[in-house]
Amino acid sequence: MTYCLAIEVDAGLVFMSDSRTSAGVDNVRSYGKMHTFGTDGDRQLVILSSGNLASTQAVLSQIQRDIRQNSADNLLEVEELEMAAAYLGRLLRQQSEQHEATVKMAGSSAEASFIVGGQIGDQRPTLFLVYPQGNYITTSENTPYLQLGEAKYGRPILDRIIDRTTSLDQAALCALVSMDSTLRSNVSVGPPIEILKYETASLKLGDYLRLEESDPRLIQIRSEWNECMRNAFSSLSAVTWRELPEKPRFR
Amino acid sequence: MTYCLAIEVDAGLVFMSDSRTSAGVDNVRSYGKMHTFGTDGDRQLVILSSGNLASTQAVLSQIQRDIRQNSADNLLEVEELEMAAAYLGRLLRQQSEQHEATVKMAGSSAEASFIVGGQIGDQRPTLFLVYPQGNYITTSENTPYLQLGEAKYGRPILDRIIDRTTSLDQAALCALVSMDSTLRSNVSVGPPIEILKYETASLKLGDYLRLEESDPRLIQIRSEWNECMRNAFSSLSAVTWRELPEKPRFR
Repeated sequence: MTYCLAIEVDAGLVFMSDSRTSAGVDNVRSYGKMHTFGTDGDRQLVILSSGNLASTQAVLSQIQRDIRQNSADNLLEVEELEMAAAYLGRLLRQQSEQHEATVKMAGSSAEASFIVGGQIGDQRPTLFLVYPQGNYITTSENTPYLQLGEAKYGRPILDRIIDRTTSLDQAALCALVSMDSTLRSNVSVGPPIEILKYETASLKLGDYLRLEESDPRLIQIRSEWNECMRNAFSSLSAVTWRELPEKPRFR
Repeated sequence: MTYCLAIEVDAGLVFMSDSRTSAGVDNVRSYGKMHTFGTDGDRQLVILSSGNLASTQAVLSQIQRDIRQNSADNLLEVEELEMAAAYLGRLLRQQSEQHEATVKMAGSSAEASFIVGGQIGDQRPTLFLVYPQGNYITTSENTPYLQLGEAKYGRPILDRIIDRTTSLDQAALCALVSMDSTLRSNVSVGPPIEILKYETASLKLGDYLRLEESDPRLIQIRSEWNECMRNAFSSLSAVTWRELPEKPRFR
């Protein structure tokens, strides 16, 4: 499995991905799931990938081929980010149509999903989640982040912290806490963790980190957050049980 | 959907369930998912249910019928808790075999799952999770809790707090925090929340609460934990980005 997350705040975008790819527990491999395309000063696009590795690699190869060949559809020329999402959707759907039947017969799935985000010229920076079927969704005021894969473990902290006014550094820190909760509860998500900031209107990639399992920053977040959560929990008021014994009915 | 949780610590057991039952967003209903059987001084068994409501109701009816008729298989007579799990498994499987084909044709599923826990005589109190197929698992030293339904949102706090030495009150509080995270992120889980303590060797049901959405205790846990999490987050050290610009590769 996978855990990828992209956050959209007024200050810009944060992208994060794990690197675990597996075809079963005895075939655990590590592949980067963050892919960047762009020309400084003109546009920056970041793609996060999840799902069937053959499908995501085929789509990424086609993206690069289209850029090299300066095709009508290519990420360095599309006029809007939404057109990039539609283009990725077409590529994902092609892969799905080509391989899904045979891969399904083998008990697996050829499906893959992407998050694509960034900024083109002076347009608003934003994010799209592209489904294997080729359709896509974007963010909203109430949903300022998009996730791929094992999204649930790491979601409560995002729902509590992230809104449009969160700073890029706070959003990145919250992303790492969200990843830490996911790593702790799900063995199918694994380091290295990649995290990248994009600052609104900069039209160049911002700070980037690739955190190995042994990276002191990852270890620090893990131990600090664990400590924080335990302290927070121990500061909660005790449950006040009813004084009159209230019993469940015999059902 | 559902979120049910049972925790096993040295001091005893904690059972918690939500009450949302739905056959779609426009057919949201509320049914208790906590069911208790027992004779004070002899045994206490608690069942948490999830899945198809018709199947769980049919199984619960059969359990009561078997008790009334003093059948060979009945919860007030089984010699071990594991035999209760096996008995529930048989009932679940019968329901599944009887209805799954037709319900599946209607685009739904007749499957249901149970958690059963408690204590019989001087045997060790424990928990079993019974699958729709009739097989079951129990807890372990490293997995002192079992969950049904929307388990992931509320799991990180359990993994951080619960071990065998946790007190019953702390385990109950942690269960409510776990429920709060789930309620916040998933609309298909809803109050009233039922929570019940069982103290090892007491052979009678312990404190019980049924918390409506407007219950001040539920609201207090929600606001306190939100405050705690936000304070905890704001106390984290900032991410130290590399000084040398380290950029993702163009892939």
